[in-house]
Amino acid sequence: MPSPLPTFHDVLAAAARIAPHAHATPVLRSGALDALAGCELHFKAEPLQRTGAFKFRGACNAVWALDDATAARGVVTHSSGNHGAALALAARTRGIACHVVVPEGANAAKRASIARYGAQLHSCAPTIDAREATAHAVQADTGASLIHPYTHPHVIAGQGTAALELLNAQGPLDAVVAPVGGGGLLSGTAIAAATLAPACRIIGAEPDGAADTAASLSAGERRIEFTPDTVCDGLRGTLGEPNFAVLRAYQVDVVTVPDAETLAAMRLLWQCLKVLVEPSSAIALAAILRERGRFAGQRVGVVLSGGNVDLDALPWERAA
Amino acid sequence: MPSPLPTFHDVLAAAARIAPHAHATPVLRSGALDALAGCELHFKAEPLQRTGAFKFRGACNAVWALDDATAARGVVTHSSGNHGAALALAARTRGIACHVVVPEGANAAKRASIARYGAQLHSCAPTIDAREATAHAVQADTGASLIHPYTHPHVIAGQGTAALELLNAQGPLDAVVAPVGGGGLLSGTAIAAATLAPACRIIGAEPDGAADTAASLSAGERRIEFTPDTVCDGLRGTLGEPNFAVLRAYQVDVVTVPDAETLAAMRLLWQCLKVLVEPSSAIALAAILRERGRFAGQRVGVVLSGGNVDLDALPWERAA
Repeated sequence: MPSPLPTFHDVLAAAARIAPHAHATPVLRSGALDALAGCELHFKAEPLQRTGAFKFRGACNAVWALDDATAARGVVTHSSGNHGAALALAARTRGIACHVVVPEGANAAKRASIARYGAQLHSCAPTIDAREATAHAVQADTGASLIHPYTHPHVIAGQGTAALELLNAQGPLDAVVAPVGGGGLLSGTAIAAATLAPACRIIGAEPDGAADTAASLSAGERRIEFTPDTVCDGLRGTLGEPNFAVLRAYQVDVVTVPDAETLAAMRLLWQCLKVLVEPSSAIALAAILRERGRFAGQRVGVVLSGGNVDLDALPWERAA
Repeated sequence: MPSPLPTFHDVLAAAARIAPHAHATPVLRSGALDALAGCELHFKAEPLQRTGAFKFRGACNAVWALDDATAARGVVTHSSGNHGAALALAARTRGIACHVVVPEGANAAKRASIARYGAQLHSCAPTIDAREATAHAVQADTGASLIHPYTHPHVIAGQGTAALELLNAQGPLDAVVAPVGGGGLLSGTAIAAATLAPACRIIGAEPDGAADTAASLSAGERRIEFTPDTVCDGLRGTLGEPNFAVLRAYQVDVVTVPDAETLAAMRLLWQCLKVLVEPSSAIALAAILRERGRFAGQRVGVVLSGGNVDLDALPWERAA
């Protein structure tokens, strides 16, 4: 039986639950980027969140929502990186064990970060099936709770707290743009905004090379058979079922973006905001620059989701 | 006749004067850096200040302290970069003209930034004498007020507002470390801290290749004959007279740092804080890592002064 979809009440509960552990990240502005985009941009700077990404919000909410006996058996997840690090630190804040299944070939900086936060790493082949099988095996062995990176209702509600803070700080916005991979952040954003700013449009930014969300929303059913081909390593996941349901229910729209434009946006963000953003974050600005007409003159929120970049292999150098 | 040295009252007045224009920048923390340094680090993130550096504070204070008739004739300065951009934007906030004398060979990103904020650039030879002569010629031509990058009392008071915010946000700290070039930031920091947190030690971080402040404090008189040789392009200036007087009066100490350690600290800051800091900022963390024993177990503030890095020539690549 599927869990009920999270509500605005769940986002508020998440905000209270994570407040002692998570940072309330700043909202940044740039006159140069406003001029370039032709609109007023309000950047929620989640690279400055603990573990360098919004993922800590959802992981922290899920870990602290467990009852004591369940929590004592630990948590487990499979993750391309940021969620793994986030769950590792969240588990540490509660003093419980954390197991992370990481596909071979994952971003080195992200692997190192997971290990640094004290989680036990389990390698597996880089397929969805192998990840899930390995996670279930760990779960069977240890009794740990599986905290899925983006379908878990407490994860979705936790991710919604970034938009909650953004809208509380900046007042109603005309639109909020967030990246979409599995859909945890985007669905949480839609739930938070629908109550706080009902007129605010929610728009996802998705790589051309992993555009399953755009395809699913357009078809009216999940279309998840694809091989991701994008520099946005945080957005290679497959749109989750509850995430799809939320995005449909809240009439979320998606803009697809070629990697070259994402990398150009990433450089602009580094230069103008002085914050390291990873490609999977920069795509949100790229989507706005690609469709300037839809945002002209408006007040637009942008969720910059994370900043875990491998400094030894800057993406714009790989692309050159 | 030299101006009287700025006081804590001047720092408070500066805070009120710049509040409508400057950002109150966040204070960032990192568990990984705390573990590495063996102390509790509180980073004041001035790369997130307007123009990407603390320099906007002092420039903005100086511009808005002018009476209307004087302001109408504009402002002029000579600057290796960040102060020029800061004065340009500060002048724009008041709607007055700004002239910036820039030495040949200045950082390309900083030149572009000065021009983008609408100032008129005047090139000169890369010597202190040529800079001052060109600035005086512009001043004679236009009637503009000279706003020196670090000796102007309103600039010193404005720079002190970063430490004011840091100490107000974090409570009394055991020490605050800030970079020192001409001494505007470090002297303003000392003035702010002396009243707010009298037991707080103030420590400057200075490149081995431009260690005139350490030499001057040690000799008890300004020792300013030297040729700077450092990657820290913001710290090549010569310690100013009022700055020297303040640093002596407040018993400020200076740690000198080799460039290689500064570049290593810069990478650490990018990785752990997700904020772009320039070498001239990273030197403050390098000084703490170099002299861990002096800070062990303490609560230490670090003023990360700016983030204007040329992304086409990352310093650690130039050094490799």
